[in-house]
Amino acid sequence: MIVVMSMGHEPEQRDAVVGRIRELGLREREIIGVERTVIAVLGQVYPELRDEFATMEGVDDVVRISKPYKLASRETHPEDTVVDLPYGVRVGGGKTVLIAGPCSIESEEQLFEAARAVRRSGAHILRGGAFKPRTSPYAFRGLGLEGLRLLAAAGAELSMPVITELLSERDVESVAEYSDVLQIGARNSQNFSLLDEVGRVGKPVMLKRGLAGTIEEWLLAAEYILSHGNSQLILCERGIRTFEVATRNTLDLNAVAMVKRLSHLPVLADPSHGTGKWYLVQPMALASLAAGADGVMVEVHPSPDHALSDGAQSLTPDNFDVLMQRARAVAEAVGRPLHALPAAASR
Amino acid sequence: MIVVMSMGHEPEQRDAVVGRIRELGLREREIIGVERTVIAVLGQVYPELRDEFATMEGVDDVVRISKPYKLASRETHPEDTVVDLPYGVRVGGGKTVLIAGPCSIESEEQLFEAARAVRRSGAHILRGGAFKPRTSPYAFRGLGLEGLRLLAAAGAELSMPVITELLSERDVESVAEYSDVLQIGARNSQNFSLLDEVGRVGKPVMLKRGLAGTIEEWLLAAEYILSHGNSQLILCERGIRTFEVATRNTLDLNAVAMVKRLSHLPVLADPSHGTGKWYLVQPMALASLAAGADGVMVEVHPSPDHALSDGAQSLTPDNFDVLMQRARAVAEAVGRPLHALPAAASR
Amino acid sequence: MIVVMSMGHEPEQRDAVVGRIRELGLREREIIGVERTVIAVLGQVYPELRDEFATMEGVDDVVRISKPYKLASRETHPEDTVVDLPYGVRVGGGKTVLIAGPCSIESEEQLFEAARAVRRSGAHILRGGAFKPRTSPYAFRGLGLEGLRLLAAAGAELSMPVITELLSERDVESVAEYSDVLQIGARNSQNFSLLDEVGRVGKPVMLKRGLAGTIEEWLLAAEYILSHGNSQLILCERGIRTFEVATRNTLDLNAVAMVKRLSHLPVLADPSHGTGKWYLVQPMALASLAAGADGVMVEVHPSPDHALSDGAQSLTPDNFDVLMQRARAVAEAVGRPLHALPAAASR
Amino acid sequence: MIVVMSMGHEPEQRDAVVGRIRELGLREREIIGVERTVIAVLGQVYPELRDEFATMEGVDDVVRISKPYKLASRETHPEDTVVDLPYGVRVGGGKTVLIAGPCSIESEEQLFEAARAVRRSGAHILRGGAFKPRTSPYAFRGLGLEGLRLLAAAGAELSMPVITELLSERDVESVAEYSDVLQIGARNSQNFSLLDEVGRVGKPVMLKRGLAGTIEEWLLAAEYILSHGNSQLILCERGIRTFEVATRNTLDLNAVAMVKRLSHLPVLADPSHGTGKWYLVQPMALASLAAGADGVMVEVHPSPDHALSDGAQSLTPDNFDVLMQRARAVAEAVGRPLHALPAAASR
Repeated sequence: MIVVMSMGHEPEQRDAVVGRIRELGLREREIIGVERTVIAVLGQVYPELRDEFATMEGVDDVVRISKPYKLASRETHPEDTVVDLPYGVRVGGGKTVLIAGPCSIESEEQLFEAARAVRRSGAHILRGGAFKPRTSPYAFRGLGLEGLRLLAAAGAELSMPVITELLSERDVESVAEYSDVLQIGARNSQNFSLLDEVGRVGKPVMLKRGLAGTIEEWLLAAEYILSHGNSQLILCERGIRTFEVATRNTLDLNAVAMVKRLSHLPVLADPSHGTGKWYLVQPMALASLAAGADGVMVEVHPSPDHALSDGAQSLTPDNFDVLMQRARAVAEAVGRPLHALPAAASR
Repeated sequence: MIVVMSMGHEPEQRDAVVGRIRELGLREREIIGVERTVIAVLGQVYPELRDEFATMEGVDDVVRISKPYKLASRETHPEDTVVDLPYGVRVGGGKTVLIAGPCSIESEEQLFEAARAVRRSGAHILRGGAFKPRTSPYAFRGLGLEGLRLLAAAGAELSMPVITELLSERDVESVAEYSDVLQIGARNSQNFSLLDEVGRVGKPVMLKRGLAGTIEEWLLAAEYILSHGNSQLILCERGIRTFEVATRNTLDLNAVAMVKRLSHLPVLADPSHGTGKWYLVQPMALASLAAGADGVMVEVHPSPDHALSDGAQSLTPDNFDVLMQRARAVAEAVGRPLHALPAAASR
Repeated sequence: MIVVMSMGHEPEQRDAVVGRIRELGLREREIIGVERTVIAVLGQVYPELRDEFATMEGVDDVVRISKPYKLASRETHPEDTVVDLPYGVRVGGGKTVLIAGPCSIESEEQLFEAARAVRRSGAHILRGGAFKPRTSPYAFRGLGLEGLRLLAAAGAELSMPVITELLSERDVESVAEYSDVLQIGARNSQNFSLLDEVGRVGKPVMLKRGLAGTIEEWLLAAEYILSHGNSQLILCERGIRTFEVATRNTLDLNAVAMVKRLSHLPVLADPSHGTGKWYLVQPMALASLAAGADGVMVEVHPSPDHALSDGAQSLTPDNFDVLMQRARAVAEAVGRPLHALPAAASR
Repeated sequence: MIVVMSMGHEPEQRDAVVGRIRELGLREREIIGVERTVIAVLGQVYPELRDEFATMEGVDDVVRISKPYKLASRETHPEDTVVDLPYGVRVGGGKTVLIAGPCSIESEEQLFEAARAVRRSGAHILRGGAFKPRTSPYAFRGLGLEGLRLLAAAGAELSMPVITELLSERDVESVAEYSDVLQIGARNSQNFSLLDEVGRVGKPVMLKRGLAGTIEEWLLAAEYILSHGNSQLILCERGIRTFEVATRNTLDLNAVAMVKRLSHLPVLADPSHGTGKWYLVQPMALASLAAGADGVMVEVHPSPDHALSDGAQSLTPDNFDVLMQRARAVAEAVGRPLHALPAAASR
């Protein structure tokens, strides 16, 4: 941590900063530059310290040097993390996976139709929402437990690992019972109670980035989960909020490439939420793979124009089939070929 | 809802849209303009419909006309809502209130020192954090239940209503037991499980705007709470996330003025979080009042340079005292004078 | 400048950094912390150096310490700058000024009607657009030279200094001939050729902040003008672009308060562009003054519903008259009363 | 255009809107819905009309239906535009082009070294900056005319078309004399005087998107150029400004895919400016191609750690060579293979 003194600060102000550093059991190193004096703080600093110094008189700024996340950092854990799922599916480690399925589980028929279609086209993991975060309280909010059961049944029948989002600490146990991966959505990316809870449950987790979440905050949210000893963690970029209104969100593929460098965790991208437009899903899925993503998650619905949620960004099974073919070509071009199909063998 | 057809759409595509409208039990009205044909959808539409039409062929765009929130809207509820708190304090209704106190409750001594100081200077409501949302899992996360008890004790001793944030559905009951107002923070502004829960509890709630929350989303989050029959709701603008890095957030006072027009709910502003710099708190508190806020909430700490959280944005008691004097002048200049001091009478 | 080395960097990488520092005629100071080694660079550094070190192997980050603007900084120029205009009007220095007039000059009648109204209500400076930056090439782009002549005539008749925007280096001379203040709009806030040009012309300039301009970039744009020896410079916050769509822009009053601290230049705010809604102009004008602005600029049109540009954000003369009364009260409440009316004496 | 009336508006307010529509020579069509009454405006509307109606009493909102750009729209011009350059290079039309070269032209030696390297690796077009837009007035601002001459000489010697940015209307003629493509940078994307000027000059233009430019504004800026009869126009996405600070900008590949759908113009991407980090350039260049870009532009410098500008985002010739090989594979995977090398034949 570097304390930058104001130009023209008083000697007593500098002394107060040094005094406070020593009071905290830390050491200081003062550097007198041409324009500025800075005081480096040595020892085991903690984030709050920044604020403490920032309010002292004669201090112009305080600059943090060390990264605030440790367990998520590639510096402290250089080798890639691979997340193991049922049916031999592994996320990370040089192969590309496709997660597909409906936004919401609406009925057994709708789910199984979507599931069979995506399995046939080559998807590895089945998604489906049972608890839906909806901006309006008047919108369809999911089938709940009934949806979880359908999802588990579809996964078992088709030999696919399944993933679903949870919204409440109260549902952690039941979601962990039925789903192979617990998804934390963008709106809960800083719901620290929920992060603590899924960190404790010991099942694979997929953590989406928040709508206004910086890369650093995203990795700190990951740190919450990792710090409970749960290392089976997948990250997922799903678009951030910017001034652009022609698309629902701005899929930030810079972040995918950057996080692959900063962290050892596998990173996926969700071009369905990242664009909000079904006709942008294919190009942005391919772009995600080219940017270095370990896979993509896309929404597929048997009849998007009758979907109870996110129809505008859902692919038809036919469009998904085309996407799979092109994804195969791009994945090979960038040296991360598609993962083998899930094995039908029992878990 | 208006369905905008593409230029050069096929007649069958138009027929399919009309067919779908009638299938839904709605009626259509077609308008053929110079460049475009649009089809107005008449009847009880719902938000999902937008997506349904957006995926149909030949459709270029779908424009929503009605506002998605009802209970929060001034159109359906023209008169101002006033939230009644203990000790005769009322939020909204033409008077200005000041909420003040430490970011985190750190100890009995620290809390009471801050509380006495802000009471003496004229604050109406005491704030103090017992459960702290922290970006890093390694930061101080609050005293929890012990903090709640201290806060309630301070409020009782000083005859001030108290407010504190809650992070978890599991804490709703205990927070409701000790605090007069339940605060939903920015990071939980779309934690719909928590919104449902505080909607049911029947105590006054203060709902902050999300870091990337639009005004519409904020009012829809309010709608979640109102739809459970809890109408004792206060809104609080606390800064949004933008590209500017010189300040912690960008306090959006446009939103304060706009929401006062769109909604009947009282609106406060939090210049401490909205700026992140103690030296900007006073000017932005005054600006908030001039923009039409029904009050402001500010962080005050006996010694900000030793605070366990948010020291950089906390005022000293002396600075808060100066702020109160200036707030009085501005509040009178805009015709919403300071509320009377809390009455020492029992609840 | 502080070079932060990666954890686990090689000794030769550290040596290369030190070597490069010395090759540049600078000195280094190495600090070995618990987690990181950082190398402080001492001497006359320049901004490009940051990039140079950032590309060297073993370097994790480079942190700039000194502020990149000098002439605009309050650290190097503590006392407030006051800009002197004709008719005894001064911007800055503790008094509040109001600039008002139509967005575009549309005709002699329209301009004079607006000008007389705002003069009558107590405005100090007359605004009017002769060259209009329009997002679409098909929109009304202003009367040009004819507009300049009308503006100068209105200013002379009513004894008010006038201000108008210029868009092209080619118009600098003619605008300088007719207008007392040259306005650089948000879209040209990084048009460096134009900044250079108005820096050379030696007349007062008002520089708006860019739609995506950080406070630092805004002060660096000011530095362009100041570095040509033109110190008669006014800054104007006019709203930044964020994700919020309910308002045209987000008026960033944090920036007003912050720039008053960082710089000695007078700062105004433009709530007309900053909100885009006429009904938000009054509350946000008052908020601007409370935040510390030295004045506000608002658009006034005799009949906004027939305006050729920006009608939606223009006040009627009657609404402006109300605004002036309330502005007087708020300006006094914050200790920066309204400036005296322009003196009718000749220039 | 659709005028949305407020709930509970007065009949006279509705009559005033209808009266104004007819006064303008337009026709109305009134639609009375369950909640709202809307009035569709039929005839040749213009953008200003929106503001006019928005200020009328009883009006809640005004919704635009038609797209404000015409010449840039694929609806009015379905077939792809291809821009023809010297040496047989064509931008658009199903082949992928690579533009490469140094950020700034620093010397004959530096430029030719970079140029030979990128030519050898397979780049199609040579870039080099002679006029540099710099945030700070104290930074290196380019060699000017001398730089232009060097660039033209390098292009001629290596048989490559060249591209360079211009900042000032005064330089249009000289840049047009030496450069095959005139680049308008992000900071001038709404410098309408300059857009008009390059529209008139009749040479190919590359228009970058602004830092805060929406897709619609970008296409309207294109419309400025196209409306002067210059149809040889290339668009280039170069990153937008968001809250994320880990990267210099956020490269918005959604926008690339979207503009390919909305417009017939070729679209490139600039991952150097779009990321600001040399190590992100390769993945994001590949992602750009996968998203549908007709090519990419990257900065290459013989020794980035000694560059006078943008060193941190410049590739070494070796890194560029690797990028070319991977770009070839991805370009083929998405069916838009690399363009043939420029022909050595004379222009």
